[in-house]
Amino acid sequence: MSAKKKTVSKKTTKRRTRSSKVEKYVYFFGNGKAEGKAAMKTLLGGKGANLAEMTNLGVPVPPGFTISTRACQLFYENERQYPRGMDEQVDANLAKLEKAMGAQFGGAENPLLVSVRSGAAVSMPGMMDTVLNLGLNDETVEALAKKTNNPRFAYDAYRRFLTMFGNVVMGMEHHDFELVLDKKKSQIGKKLDTDLKTDDLKDLVKQYKKLVFDRTGESFPTDPREQLQKAIDAVFGSWNNPRAKRYRELNDIRGLIGTAVNVQAMVYGNMGDTSGTGVCFSRDPSTGENYFYGEYLMNAQGEDVVAGIRTPQPLNDLKKANPKVYKELVAIKNRLEKHYRDMQDMEFTIQEGKLFFLQTRTGKRTAKAAVKIACDLVKEKQITKDQALLRVDPKQLDQLLHPMFDPKAKKQCIAKGLPASPGAATGVVVFTADHAEEEAKNGKAVILVRIETSPEDIGGMHVAKGILTSRGGMTSHAAVVARGMGTCCVAGCGEIIIDYKARQFSVGNTVVKEGDWISLDGSLGEVYLGKVETMQAQLSGEFGKLMRWADNLRKLNVRTNADTPHDSEVARRFGAEGIGLTRTEHMFFEGDRIVAVREMILSENKEGREKALAKLLPIQKNDFIGIFEAMHGLPVTIRLLDPPLHEFVPHEEANQKEMADAMGISVEKVRQKVNSLHEFNPMLGHRGCRLGITYPEIYDMQVRAIIEAACEVKKKGLRVFPEIMIPLIGTVKELSILRENALKVIEKVFKEKRTTVNYMIGTMIEIPRAALVADKIAEVAEFFSFGTNDLTQMTFGYSRDDAGVFLPEYVQQGILDKDPFQALDQEGVGYLVDLGITKGRSTRPKLKVGICGEHGGEPSSVEFCHRVGMNYVSCSPFRVPIARLAAAQAVIKEAKAKKAARSKKK
Amino acid sequence: MSAKKKTVSKKTTKRRTRSSKVEKYVYFFGNGKAEGKAAMKTLLGGKGANLAEMTNLGVPVPPGFTISTRACQLFYENERQYPRGMDEQVDANLAKLEKAMGAQFGGAENPLLVSVRSGAAVSMPGMMDTVLNLGLNDETVEALAKKTNNPRFAYDAYRRFLTMFGNVVMGMEHHDFELVLDKKKSQIGKKLDTDLKTDDLKDLVKQYKKLVFDRTGESFPTDPREQLQKAIDAVFGSWNNPRAKRYRELNDIRGLIGTAVNVQAMVYGNMGDTSGTGVCFSRDPSTGENYFYGEYLMNAQGEDVVAGIRTPQPLNDLKKANPKVYKELVAIKNRLEKHYRDMQDMEFTIQEGKLFFLQTRTGKRTAKAAVKIACDLVKEKQITKDQALLRVDPKQLDQLLHPMFDPKAKKQCIAKGLPASPGAATGVVVFTADHAEEEAKNGKAVILVRIETSPEDIGGMHVAKGILTSRGGMTSHAAVVARGMGTCCVAGCGEIIIDYKARQFSVGNTVVKEGDWISLDGSLGEVYLGKVETMQAQLSGEFGKLMRWADNLRKLNVRTNADTPHDSEVARRFGAEGIGLTRTEHMFFEGDRIVAVREMILSENKEGREKALAKLLPIQKNDFIGIFEAMHGLPVTIRLLDPPLHEFVPHEEANQKEMADAMGISVEKVRQKVNSLHEFNPMLGHRGCRLGITYPEIYDMQVRAIIEAACEVKKKGLRVFPEIMIPLIGTVKELSILRENALKVIEKVFKEKRTTVNYMIGTMIEIPRAALVADKIAEVAEFFSFGTNDLTQMTFGYSRDDAGVFLPEYVQQGILDKDPFQALDQEGVGYLVDLGITKGRSTRPKLKVGICGEHGGEPSSVEFCHRVGMNYVSCSPFRVPIARLAAAQAVIKEAKAKKAARSKKK
Repeated sequence: MSAKKKTVSKKTTKRRTRSSKVEKYVYFFGNGKAEGKAAMKTLLGGKGANLAEMTNLGVPVPPGFTISTRACQLFYENERQYPRGMDEQVDANLAKLEKAMGAQFGGAENPLLVSVRSGAAVSMPGMMDTVLNLGLNDETVEALAKKTNNPRFAYDAYRRFLTMFGNVVMGMEHHDFELVLDKKKSQIGKKLDTDLKTDDLKDLVKQYKKLVFDRTGESFPTDPREQLQKAIDAVFGSWNNPRAKRYRELNDIRGLIGTAVNVQAMVYGNMGDTSGTGVCFSRDPSTGENYFYGEYLMNAQGEDVVAGIRTPQPLNDLKKANPKVYKELVAIKNRLEKHYRDMQDMEFTIQEGKLFFLQTRTGKRTAKAAVKIACDLVKEKQITKDQALLRVDPKQLDQLLHPMFDPKAKKQCIAKGLPASPGAATGVVVFTADHAEEEAKNGKAVILVRIETSPEDIGGMHVAKGILTSRGGMTSHAAVVARGMGTCCVAGCGEIIIDYKARQFSVGNTVVKEGDWISLDGSLGEVYLGKVETMQAQLSGEFGKLMRWADNLRKLNVRTNADTPHDSEVARRFGAEGIGLTRTEHMFFEGDRIVAVREMILSENKEGREKALAKLLPIQKNDFIGIFEAMHGLPVTIRLLDPPLHEFVPHEEANQKEMADAMGISVEKVRQKVNSLHEFNPMLGHRGCRLGITYPEIYDMQVRAIIEAACEVKKKGLRVFPEIMIPLIGTVKELSILRENALKVIEKVFKEKRTTVNYMIGTMIEIPRAALVADKIAEVAEFFSFGTNDLTQMTFGYSRDDAGVFLPEYVQQGILDKDPFQALDQEGVGYLVDLGITKGRSTRPKLKVGICGEHGGEPSSVEFCHRVGMNYVSCSPFRVPIARLAAAQAVIKEAKAKKAARSKKK
Repeated sequence: MSAKKKTVSKKTTKRRTRSSKVEKYVYFFGNGKAEGKAAMKTLLGGKGANLAEMTNLGVPVPPGFTISTRACQLFYENERQYPRGMDEQVDANLAKLEKAMGAQFGGAENPLLVSVRSGAAVSMPGMMDTVLNLGLNDETVEALAKKTNNPRFAYDAYRRFLTMFGNVVMGMEHHDFELVLDKKKSQIGKKLDTDLKTDDLKDLVKQYKKLVFDRTGESFPTDPREQLQKAIDAVFGSWNNPRAKRYRELNDIRGLIGTAVNVQAMVYGNMGDTSGTGVCFSRDPSTGENYFYGEYLMNAQGEDVVAGIRTPQPLNDLKKANPKVYKELVAIKNRLEKHYRDMQDMEFTIQEGKLFFLQTRTGKRTAKAAVKIACDLVKEKQITKDQALLRVDPKQLDQLLHPMFDPKAKKQCIAKGLPASPGAATGVVVFTADHAEEEAKNGKAVILVRIETSPEDIGGMHVAKGILTSRGGMTSHAAVVARGMGTCCVAGCGEIIIDYKARQFSVGNTVVKEGDWISLDGSLGEVYLGKVETMQAQLSGEFGKLMRWADNLRKLNVRTNADTPHDSEVARRFGAEGIGLTRTEHMFFEGDRIVAVREMILSENKEGREKALAKLLPIQKNDFIGIFEAMHGLPVTIRLLDPPLHEFVPHEEANQKEMADAMGISVEKVRQKVNSLHEFNPMLGHRGCRLGITYPEIYDMQVRAIIEAACEVKKKGLRVFPEIMIPLIGTVKELSILRENALKVIEKVFKEKRTTVNYMIGTMIEIPRAALVADKIAEVAEFFSFGTNDLTQMTFGYSRDDAGVFLPEYVQQGILDKDPFQALDQEGVGYLVDLGITKGRSTRPKLKVGICGEHGGEPSSVEFCHRVGMNYVSCSPFRVPIARLAAAQAVIKEAKAKKAARSKKK
């Protein structure tokens, strides 16, 4: 834009404001020309912008006009009054439309009939959808009958219009109209709507009008302009109805100013055998194949296709039935896909042999289709690799990596919990881990249902197809372990009441007994009654290609959180470039080692603890050897013991008795110890490095196990890079003391083993204070790993185990954008992360920084991690591909934002 | 300093470093001239610097020299080797000393004898103290005998030297020497040391030397230079002995580089009847009266005065006995006090009629004396008001406000807990609140001993003289309530094991039964066996004067935390300028109201809750009326309900039954509700504004009670300024929702009451996230009050209820400077506070900011609050004067620091 032009435009704006000239609210489209275009989506809504765009492209679209979202915004700002001048603009556009159609709105000879549809910038169920055939009344219906020479068609349209208008504009129940219709049909002894004769329809129209008056106290409006006005009212009004608001909340739709209203001339697919209607996709939305996919019905209206009373025909049939129209359809389809450079979802109507397009939009698709289409479009040189990478929603990849339900299967959802670990599972209900193992041995697919799981349930969790818990959040034991295993899990499903004694659970009146089949969707958090068939995950070649593109682009490394060699191997296959978090505490439970752990805890003194720890040393070392071997050549971050000791002791009397017997001490002593370990707020208690300070021998054992393992693996000729991570650091002094302790052990092991390995000692930043004094901590720490789970808990003051009581309400009321345990709170927690990195690098410029909280596999959080300059993210194995893609998208989005900022500057 | 000089000195330093010229380590004093001075305390230690200063002042001080702390520092840096050149400097100074005394070290005619004393920059028990008579051996003792013509004196000095040197230098037990001495006395049938004849002493010397050899395998060193070397070794070595390190930790002594060594010619108070020794204070250290106070003993050494074998005489007696020396003493005392402008604590010796001063230092004093002396010195124009304000340690003021023990009373300390609420108390032990009330009715003084207290114990706590708990920290229920009441409390005394059933507690082998007398020192956290007489607090006129000076100077307002009209009145008398925190939850427990509270909690729906809340409304309103009346004319900040609901329901079965009966529902239902309210981490749970969001009716009731009360008090003609404070805000949206809710209620009440009052709505900043987004929160909040208790918990990730397990060890190991719940952690938590204020005022420049955590009454924290620009601090009533003084000191210190920075710039 030249400097001169700019000045002029500025002036114009100024003048406009001063004179408060009326804004343009209504945009016409028709006759191959439109005032709007696709880029005006914010103002015209998605539907309106696309109708304009299609018109400009020369696609045959019934003409009409769009009332802008700005008008809707002013409507709400001004106590539900239309902005000044809008009515006049509607009238003017109506006139234009009449001219384009050669018809008159309310005309007694050639009446103009229109559809009225809502359309915000984002597609949004819950708002008023559609009123068809608007403009009909007792006069115009006769004109229509005469013009089409089809009275039955005219009266059928009329009674449909009465139903729709009565329902969506006048607030009546659809059901009430149905009752009258059913009565009529039974009176005349017919079953199908198509069996109704013209007179029957005329009678229905009469009855409908009476029904409207009886119910609403108002006559059905006969003036078409009044009908239009009321329909516009209804569309604007539906913008803020509870369902629409709820939908926006649930789907995180923000920043929209309102909905547009689209008024468009009616075309009819039900005007006889040369008319018809259909929907089509430019490629197959479930496989992504480049195959023209769609369905149509002759002599039918759109709603008939949807209603499913008649079975639509595949589009191929049209090729034979009407090759001319089919050819035109294919040509337009190609034009639209080429124009939008993406797979299109289109609606069309054939009116007496003439083709009209009513809608086109980017089509929804499965993950598999998304990947294939993106890759194919690159091959076809329609889009770049960058664009292809942005076309796939990283979250969707879950579908590819986990089993999923057959999309056609019918499901009866009985409860909803948290989508704790994605995938689909079906199996018989068992209530204990032991039982799960038994049944699995017998070859049964089982779903393990627990109030909550504990480390003792690991065996059962491992064999279960799916896990369902009634308590606990996204980072509960069940959720974390299930994600690590890639097992489907629905957690914190509070609606189900589990009765272990009766071996059953109930949801409302539904009772599910042990052995009954249920199915879980871990991606949606849904529980279904009965068996639902699942389909195994299959990774296509296109998936690998897309991932390679992502890998070439991304700057963030992607590591995994893994506690076992098996998890490590899975993650490595998914592209993990190291381990960002190995939790050592899970290792403390397996087999007999828990006995030694408890012996250590019960010891009265350091000597006793050291004796017990000596038993653990070789076991832990073997754990680490397995992991180092699986990850050879890649870095492995191992976190020293983190949870408070009371997590390792039994809290129920029977178990305490068992433990006392095993240890050869009195139950009383066990009970005393367990009681003395009780904490009011264990999250803020004696754990992490605080244990390392008070019981240095524990960390000494762990460091020894790590370094001995590393030396032994190195001797086998494998490369190994252990990173020792000290958790819960809040002061630099903690870290320097523990680092000194570790160095002493390491030096000793090196001497004993007569070798050395490269290693690092670093810390988690998970205590707010650690981020605040990160400059000092970085003087001692060789790397930072942000533990954003705990950091979120403490920054918000939310216990993730307890927040379930209010967090859902917080998200619903919009107090929080998202559950901060699922997506990183960038404003608050993110501020600390950013500060921590900046401060840390102020004293150690090359400080390696990563994240190992669950956020490391959540796309918006990964983008944040890229932005603040982390070196890597780490997440559970099955989220590694998600993180890889999200990291690449972050690079592209950053470049785009920079470009936008530059051009704005100019 | 001129620019030229500066350059020169810089050059000198440079040259020195390059040529590694030997530093000066030894500083001489004697003959009216010294190389050191008082300002060189860091280098010469307190004792050395003062000896030099006194010498320069012309005070008769036995000559000697000081080896600097720098030498000690190098000693430790260089693996316990003396720095190069130090030995030579010692030799040179010994020669100088010999010359000054006309004596020879190890001389066979006129031997020089010296004392060797440690002396760091801060007085520090735990280090090696003193070796007297150094230089004696079998030869020099004879010379001394001849020279003094007093063989008994000489051999007595010798055996004392052997004991002291053997003990403090050679590491033997003092006890071993005592055994030999006792045996000797019983052999000759005598009881007192003074009964020993010269030959007895000679024999003892022989036996002592043998004892030393037997025990250490070394001969007692006979060479005086070797003796000196070993004594210096011992002083330097004692700097890092465990006792000294522990003392520095406990007393927060940091940044010292080492101890100095003072070598000084001996003078003797035991050379006959014209000799003597004494200690004196320039004013009375317990009352502050300007009265020359002291004690002396003729023919005695200093240790005899301390040992208490002979009773010293009051100084007045010396006036008659030796008016000349007394006059000299008074003259020097006056000179020293005038010089140091503070009360001096001095040691003197008269050797054969000649007066020597061995030490002067600023005298320790009681709070009462500190206040009086500071005021008197101002009156005498010796110091300014600012200096006077700095002379009183704010923490010490506690002594003035609470009862204290008679300083002369003997006490048997049996346990130590946290100094939770200051003062002294004595009474009989009771174990339940009810029992406390019974006994108090009978006129008995009781000490309530509980594992921990709960709100149900309030009645008993109110009548108790003191409270002792075995669990809980500085902010436990017992501690907070006791401080509010001004009742002495020792909390978290883990050493005592309470057995409620047996009605007794035990500490080690000591068993204390119900009805036994114990005494508590709440300022020290000590528990004593038996009855210890207490003295009531009395506020002097000087106290009032000092407080007025403080008030004129300070910029911070001082408010109080008070939940009752009584506490409010007490605080107002102590100078509180409003209430900074009224906790409304304590009000929920009294009398029958807990029934209504529980009814509300048990309600299934909003209607039920509102019904129960309606019962609470008039009661809460009356609470507020009482407080508003007590605080008329001053602002009152009321915090809406904060704790989680489970704090209000009974957790024991018997109480649940009681509750069920009272409510007319099943125990099962009560149990279910109690269980459903259970939280894993209640500190991070469903509380504060989170309750306000999910149960808006609770806050609505409280806001109504506040505003109705305010309107009614206003109608009585009193001025009232309610400030409604919403706790636990973490997001601005929470606050804006709750503010809107409150505004609706307030408007309604104003209409009903046909009046209005001024009010504010603000928030606590106690969640880390709130500080991080304070700019947004300040757009809605009219004031901030930093809740540093919770902010500390979450910033550190410490639960104050659980941290007792590791916090003491953290302070001991130096990981933390101080318990962050007692003194604000300025580095971490303070960073958030500072950030919160800066961000808050970025969007609301005149934002009123205060603090209402316990830190508001802790001097170093108050100074911090001043520095970051808060408007007020708020603390428990009895800490109000402390905060007033600390706030004034903050102003003075800031001005000083600014001045220092300016002159540094120049």
